[in-house]
Amino acid sequence: MTRAETLQQKMREEKIDVLMAQSRPNVFYISGFDADPHERLLAVLLFAEADPLVICPAMEINQIKKIIDAPIIGYSDTENPWEKLQQYLSKKQIAMQTIALESGISWSRLKEWQRIAPDSQLVEADGLLTGSRLIKSAEEQSYMKEAAALADQGIAAGIAALKEGITEVEVVAAIEYALKKKGVREMSFQPMVLFGGNGGDPHGVPGSTPLQKGSSVLFDLGVMWKGYASDITRTVFFGEPDEESRRVYETVLRALQTSLSAAAPGETIGRLDHTARSVIEEAGYGEYFPHRIGHGIGIDVHELPSMHANNNDLLKPGMTFTIEPGIYIPGKIGVRIEDDVLLTEDGAVTLTKTPVSLTVV
Amino acid sequence: MTRAETLQQKMREEKIDVLMAQSRPNVFYISGFDADPHERLLAVLLFAEADPLVICPAMEINQIKKIIDAPIIGYSDTENPWEKLQQYLSKKQIAMQTIALESGISWSRLKEWQRIAPDSQLVEADGLLTGSRLIKSAEEQSYMKEAAALADQGIAAGIAALKEGITEVEVVAAIEYALKKKGVREMSFQPMVLFGGNGGDPHGVPGSTPLQKGSSVLFDLGVMWKGYASDITRTVFFGEPDEESRRVYETVLRALQTSLSAAAPGETIGRLDHTARSVIEEAGYGEYFPHRIGHGIGIDVHELPSMHANNNDLLKPGMTFTIEPGIYIPGKIGVRIEDDVLLTEDGAVTLTKTPVSLTVV
Repeated sequence: MTRAETLQQKMREEKIDVLMAQSRPNVFYISGFDADPHERLLAVLLFAEADPLVICPAMEINQIKKIIDAPIIGYSDTENPWEKLQQYLSKKQIAMQTIALESGISWSRLKEWQRIAPDSQLVEADGLLTGSRLIKSAEEQSYMKEAAALADQGIAAGIAALKEGITEVEVVAAIEYALKKKGVREMSFQPMVLFGGNGGDPHGVPGSTPLQKGSSVLFDLGVMWKGYASDITRTVFFGEPDEESRRVYETVLRALQTSLSAAAPGETIGRLDHTARSVIEEAGYGEYFPHRIGHGIGIDVHELPSMHANNNDLLKPGMTFTIEPGIYIPGKIGVRIEDDVLLTEDGAVTLTKTPVSLTVV
Repeated sequence: MTRAETLQQKMREEKIDVLMAQSRPNVFYISGFDADPHERLLAVLLFAEADPLVICPAMEINQIKKIIDAPIIGYSDTENPWEKLQQYLSKKQIAMQTIALESGISWSRLKEWQRIAPDSQLVEADGLLTGSRLIKSAEEQSYMKEAAALADQGIAAGIAALKEGITEVEVVAAIEYALKKKGVREMSFQPMVLFGGNGGDPHGVPGSTPLQKGSSVLFDLGVMWKGYASDITRTVFFGEPDEESRRVYETVLRALQTSLSAAAPGETIGRLDHTARSVIEEAGYGEYFPHRIGHGIGIDVHELPSMHANNNDLLKPGMTFTIEPGIYIPGKIGVRIEDDVLLTEDGAVTLTKTPVSLTVV
C-alpha cells in the first residue's frame, strides 16, 4: 500500500474528507516529489473517497509528472490556484465536511480554505501526517544511514582542513566542497565550525577567527540525501587541551553515553534528557546545558519527537532522533557531541560513526 | 528614527496596538538580528505605547543581546513561550484591542494568539511590514550591490570550472567553494547548473550529466550578504551553439533589454512582463515562457513586488527586483538571463554586471 493509500484509510477511519499537505517535507513524504516552490503553492490533496490531486506551478509540471501519477492542476503566475482548486472540488463533487490542514499552514492559506469551504470543519492534520512519519521504514532507515555516513565524511573533511591560521568560514567551505563533490546537493542546515571560545555560544556563527594551537574545534553539520537529513556534532582539539577543557569534554561524552544506554523501547523520551542532564549537573555544569537533549530527525532535520525533559511519550522501535548533550561556557569553550540514533528493539544504534573519544589533531 | 520607531508611528496612525514579527526576514528587518531558530519561536513585538519586546530561545540570548537593546523573554525547551508572553502582556498592561500578525504566520501560532487574546481583533501586518520593505534605503542598496557583485563572482567561478566531462553538481561545488572562501555564509537558494536539454525545465535539478561540446550551460545562483539576497542567471555555450540555440538566446536577450528599457518610475509593474513576453511571443516562443518576468528581491530572495503581467502597481525609485525572461524547450534547451535591478529616478540600473551578450566558452 502506498503512503497515500495508508493515509486515505486513516482518513476514512477518522472521518476526514480532505487532507491537504503543502509543506515541503509532507509533500515529499506522500508523493516522493521534493522541491522548494518558494512562495508558490505546491500541494498534495488526498480525498477519503476519490483519487489524490496535485496542485503546482505550471513550470513544475514536467518534473512532477516524472514522479507522481495523479491528476495535476497547474497554474501560471497570473492565475489563482485556489480558484482552480475550488472548481475542481465542485466539479468532482468532493465531500468536504471535515478538512485536515497542517498546523504549520499559513494564515493566508487558512483563509483561502475558509473562503472555499465556509461550512467545513477545519482540523489539524498533524496527527495523521507527522505521526505517520515517526516510525521509519527499512527503506527510510537505509537512506538515513547513507545520510549519516556522508555527515561522517563531512567531519573527516573538516578535520583534514585544520591548520594553524585557517578561519572558521574556510573550514566550512572545505567541508561543503568535499560533500558536494560526492553528489550532495543540499546541506541539512548551514554548517557550523567554531573555534575555542566561539563554541561557548550554542548557536554561534562561523566567522574569520584564525585557528590557534590548543583550541577546541566544534563541527556541527549534516546533509540532505535522498530526501533524508543527517546532523552530527563533534568537538576536537587542535593540539593538547587544557585540564578544564578535558574535564568538560569527558563530562559531555559521559552524558552522551549514559543517555544512549538509557534508550530502549517503552522508556519515556524525557528520560534520555534527564539522564544526560544529571551527569552534567553532577559535574557542576548544569547551568551550561541550556537546550533539550535532541530532536527527531528524518525528512526534516528537526521533526518530532521533541526530545525534551517533559516529553512523556514512549520510545518506539523505528524512531530516529539526535542525542546531543553540550556544555557552553561563554567566551571560554563549547563542547557538544551529537549522534543520529535509530531506536531498535535492542536499544539505540548510532547512525553516525565518527569516534567520540577525545581527539587531538 | 529606527525602523522600530517608524513602524510604531505607523501603528499609532492605523490604530494597531500590537505587532508581532516572527518570520526570519521581518525579525531581521526590524531588529538587525538574523538567525534561523528552526521550529522555535523567535519574535519581535512592537507596541503602539510601550517599548519593543524580543522573545527567543534561551540559548539565543547571548547572540541577540549583542545586537538588540530591548527587554528579552528567553525560554528553555521545557517552557512555553506563549505563557511567558501572556504574563508579560498582562503585567505591563499592554493594550491589545488590535493585533497585527504576518499573513505567513502558522495556524498553530495564530491559535496561540486567539487563546491569549480572545477579544482582540487580529489583522494582517503585511501592509505595514512588507510594504515598508519595498523601498530600499541607500544602505540597503549598497548591501545589495555587494551581494550582486558576489553573484557575478559565482558566475565567473562557474565558467572557470567548465571542462569536458565535468558534471553539473561538480560545477555547483566549485561555485559554492569559491564564494564560501570569500566569506559568503549562505547561498540565497540551492545553485542551479544545467547542461543542454536539462535547462529545458525551468526548475530542473543539477545532476551527474557530463558536459559535452556544443552544450548550453545555465547558471542560476545568488548569495546572502549582510542580510540581503542576490539572484543571477546566465546561460553560456560550451563551444559553438547551433542555429536554433543562437536564435533562442538572442530572443531572450532582446526580451530582457526591452523590459529593462521599459522600467521607469510610474510605469506599471505588469508592463515589464508584457513587453518581454511580446518579444518572445513574436519570435514564436510564447508557449515556452511559463513564468512571470521576475520578483522583488531584498532581505528575501523572493519578496514583493511580484512582477507578473496583472500587477498594476506602479514602479517606484528604490524598488529592487529581478528581470528574468526565459525560453524552455523541454529536453532540448533552456535559456534564461536574469539581472537584479534597482529602479532609480532615471530608470533601471542592473546590480549584476556579468555581460549578457552571447558568450561561447
